Amino acid sequence: LSLSLSVRMSFIEVSPESHFPLQNLPYGVFSTAAEPTPRIGVAIGDEILVLPVIKHLFEGPELQGKTDVFDQPTLNALMALGRPAWKEARAVITKVLAKDNPTLRDNAELRAKAFVPQAEATMHIPANIGDYTDFYSSKEHASNLGSMFRDPSNPLLPNWLHIPVGYHGRASSVVVSGTPLHRPCGQTRPDPEKPPVFGPCRLADFELEMAFLTGPGNKLGEPITIDKAQDHIFGMVLMNDWSARDIQKWEYVPLGPFLGKNFGTTISPWVVTIDALMPFCVPNVPQDPKPLPYLQHDDPFNFDINLSVAIKPDGKKPKVVGETNFKYMYWSMKQQLAHHSVTGCNIRPGDLMGSGTISGPTPDSYGSMIEICWKGTKPVDLGDGETRKFLADNDEVIMTGFCQGDGYQVGFGNCVGKLLPAKQ
Amino acid sequence: LSLSLSVRMSFIEVSPESHFPLQNLPYGVFSTAAEPTPRIGVAIGDEILVLPVIKHLFEGPELQGKTDVFDQPTLNALMALGRPAWKEARAVITKVLAKDNPTLRDNAELRAKAFVPQAEATMHIPANIGDYTDFYSSKEHASNLGSMFRDPSNPLLPNWLHIPVGYHGRASSVVVSGTPLHRPCGQTRPDPEKPPVFGPCRLADFELEMAFLTGPGNKLGEPITIDKAQDHIFGMVLMNDWSARDIQKWEYVPLGPFLGKNFGTTISPWVVTIDALMPFCVPNVPQDPKPLPYLQHDDPFNFDINLSVAIKPDGKKPKVVGETNFKYMYWSMKQQLAHHSVTGCNIRPGDLMGSGTISGPTPDSYGSMIEICWKGTKPVDLGDGETRKFLADNDEVIMTGFCQGDGYQVGFGNCVGKLLPAKQ
Ligand SMILES: [Ca+2]
Ligand SMILES: [Ca+2]
Ligand SMILES: [Mg+2]
Ligand SMILES: [Mg+2]
Ligand code: NI
Repeated sequence: LSLSLSVRMSFIEVSPESHFPLQNLPYGVFSTAAEPTPRIGVAIGDEILVLPVIKHLFEGPELQGKTDVFDQPTLNALMALGRPAWKEARAVITKVLAKDNPTLRDNAELRAKAFVPQAEATMHIPANIGDYTDFYSSKEHASNLGSMFRDPSNPLLPNWLHIPVGYHGRASSVVVSGTPLHRPCGQTRPDPEKPPVFGPCRLADFELEMAFLTGPGNKLGEPITIDKAQDHIFGMVLMNDWSARDIQKWEYVPLGPFLGKNFGTTISPWVVTIDALMPFCVPNVPQDPKPLPYLQHDDPFNFDINLSVAIKPDGKKPKVVGETNFKYMYWSMKQQLAHHSVTGCNIRPGDLMGSGTISGPTPDSYGSMIEICWKGTKPVDLGDGETRKFLADNDEVIMTGFCQGDGYQVGFGNCVGKLLPAKQ
Repeated sequence: LSLSLSVRMSFIEVSPESHFPLQNLPYGVFSTAAEPTPRIGVAIGDEILVLPVIKHLFEGPELQGKTDVFDQPTLNALMALGRPAWKEARAVITKVLAKDNPTLRDNAELRAKAFVPQAEATMHIPANIGDYTDFYSSKEHASNLGSMFRDPSNPLLPNWLHIPVGYHGRASSVVVSGTPLHRPCGQTRPDPEKPPVFGPCRLADFELEMAFLTGPGNKLGEPITIDKAQDHIFGMVLMNDWSARDIQKWEYVPLGPFLGKNFGTTISPWVVTIDALMPFCVPNVPQDPKPLPYLQHDDPFNFDINLSVAIKPDGKKPKVVGETNFKYMYWSMKQQLAHHSVTGCNIRPGDLMGSGTISGPTPDSYGSMIEICWKGTKPVDLGDGETRKFLADNDEVIMTGFCQGDGYQVGFGNCVGKLLPAKQ
C-alpha cells in the first residue's frame, strides 16, 4: 500500500459498500440505552467514534481550549467555530482512525469507550435548528409544476431565473430519520363549487431534497457575500419535505406554503461535511441569464450526489420510484446563502437550508409523487399488487444518497419516514 | 378605600398615564450596567420588579420547586409551565406589590435589590423564539391589498374567509424595540420590461401588528384543539413587521414573502398576559360564512386595544399616521393557533404568532404605509415640511398600544425602530 492509500484506510473495518469510510467522517448526535444523554459522534463503517471520549486528542491551534464543543448535545457549537476549526477536526479524526496510527487503535481502554456500534445507537436531530428555509432551486422541478398548474409552453415564473426562490419553513417539526409522522388533517376544497371541507389529507407526497446546515453565520445587517459563503456551509443532509398537496393548494395564495408543509420535515442524521464532498465537486449548471453580481461565483460548487427515493408499502418490499442527482440544481448553495442574507438577514449556526425538490430531466428522475405520477394521471407500479398516485397510509418513504469514489462511497445513509394514518 | 380598590394599588407610585399599573404586570427581560446578565422582571410604573430576587415568595402549589424559571435569561421556562402557574405567579406578584402588603414594602434590604428603574435598564428579546409565524387576519388589510393589486369589487381571495391565512417568518431577525435596522438591499424589478436590478429597497414600509407568545405547546402530531387554545397563549406584544414592498413584489410568487420581510421584525419588550387583557375582552367579529368546526369558538376572545403608529423624521417630531384597534381582527388568536396546529405541527413555548397588519375601516386607521398612502398615490403630511409615501432613511417608527380602564391603562409601552440608511 502506498502511504496515501494506507492513510485512507482505517483500523475500523469498512466494507466497500459502506456510506461511511474514512473519506467521509460525517458528524451526528446519538444516544444509547446505557448512555441516554445525546453525544456527538462520527460515523466510521458500522461504528460511531464518540468525540467527547477522545476530545483530548484535538490539540491543534484552532480547537485547543475549545474542545467543549464535543461535549454538547448538538453540533451547533462546532458549527459556530468555523472552517479552520472544521478542517483541523477532520484532520485529527482522519489521523486518529488511520490504520497505521496506534494512538487509539492500541489503547484498549480508550478504544472500548470510543466506539459504539451504530446498531445500538438512537440518532437525534444533529443541530438545534434556529430557522429552516426551503428553496426551490431545481429548474426541472419548477418547470414540471409550472407545466402542470400553469402553462407548459412557459412553465417558469418571471423571477425564477433571476433569484433562488425560497420561503421560510417550520423549524419545530424538523425530525430525524426514523420518526414516524401522522397523515395530517386540514382544510381543503376538493370541489371549487362547494364549501371547503375538513379531514385527512388525501394527496400526501414527499419531496426528495438535500439541505445544508450553516456555520458561524452573520450579524443582522451584514450580508454574507458570495465569496465568503462557503465559510458558512458546514455540511449536508438528505431531506424529505413531506407535503400535503391538497392542503397546500387551498391555502398557498398569496403567502405561500404553510400547513401543507408544517406537519413534518425529515432529515438524515449524519451531516456530511463540505470537505468530504469536495472530491465530488462538478461544474455549476450554466445560468442564462447571468445572475446579478451579488449572485455570481465562478468556482464550481455543485456536487455529484446520486439520490434515490423508494416507497415501501406496509409489509412489502421497497420500490425505487425516482433516481436523480444533486448536480441538477440550478442555483448553488452559495447563491442561496448569499441571496438569503443580502438583506442583512442574520444566519445562525445550525440553520437548515433545503434545496427544494430535486428533479432530473427524465420522468424516472423526478423527486415527488406529483411529478412522478404527473398530478395523479400516471399511477406508479410498486409491484406486489400495489400502485400509487400519492402516498398511502403506512407507506414508508426511504431516501438515500451517495457520491461514488474509486472503490468507495461517501454516503448520507438513509432518510426514512413512515406515514401513519391520520389521528382523528 | 375598599379592599378591592386598595389591592389594586401598589406601594410603588404609578401615574394614571402609565402603561404599567398593578392591573398590568407584564413580563420582560432586562439587564443593567451593574448586572449585565439578562434577568426576568415585571414592569410596575417606572420600575421593574426583579423576579429572581423575590423568587422565594412564590410558594404556591404550582410554582413551588419550580422557581428556577425566574432565574432564566428568557421567559420560555415560565411560558412552558402553563396557565395554572401563570395565574399563581400573577396572584403572588399582585399581592407582593399591593399597597397594604408589608412583605416587600417594609423590607428595606430586599426592596433595594428588588427594583430597578426602567430608565436604567436595557430591554432584551423576552423569549428565545423557536418559530415565528405571521398571520394575515385583518379583513380590512387583506381587502385593501386585494383592491390595490387585484380587484376592488372582489378584493378577498377565495380562501380568506375560510382559513386564517398565514406564513412562516424568519425567527432569527426578530429584534426588541429600540434596535435600529438598515434599509435592506435586494433584487427588484421596477420596470417589468427590463431586467431586475440590485440596490437599496425603495419602498420601505412598516406593518402595525400585534403578536402573541405561546405557552406549553403540543407534541408533534397532536393538534391544539380550539377549546384548549387559550391554555397555550401566554401574552401579547406589539410588533412591527418591517416590509420591503419592492423586494416582496418581485419575489413572492409562488412561495410567499421571504427577503421582503426577513431583514427584521421588531417587538415591544413587555409581554402583557392574557389575564391582564381579559377585562378588555370584547365580542368576536361576526364570521360569515361560519368557519369549519375546528375553528369555531363562541366565547369572546377579542380585545379592545387602542393602537397607533407614528413616524418621526430624523431630528423632527413624531406624527401619528394611523390609529386602529386590535378588535378589528377577523380571526381570533384561538382560531390562529388551532389552525396552525391542526396538521399536528408542534408549537413550542415562546413561539411568536403575528396578527398580520391591523387596519381599521377608515383611511386614518390603516396599519401600513402602502395602505395609508394607497400605493404611493396619496402622500401623507408629517408636518415641518416632511411628506412620505414610504419610509425615508433615518425615520423612526413608533408604535404604541393600550387598553383604557376606568382611571388606568393596561398598556404595551412602545415598539420603536429606526430605519438607518442602506449599507453598501
Ligand atoms: Ca420543498
Ligand atoms: Ca405582516
Ligand atoms: Mg416540510
Ligand atoms: Mg418581519
Ligand atoms: Ni403517534
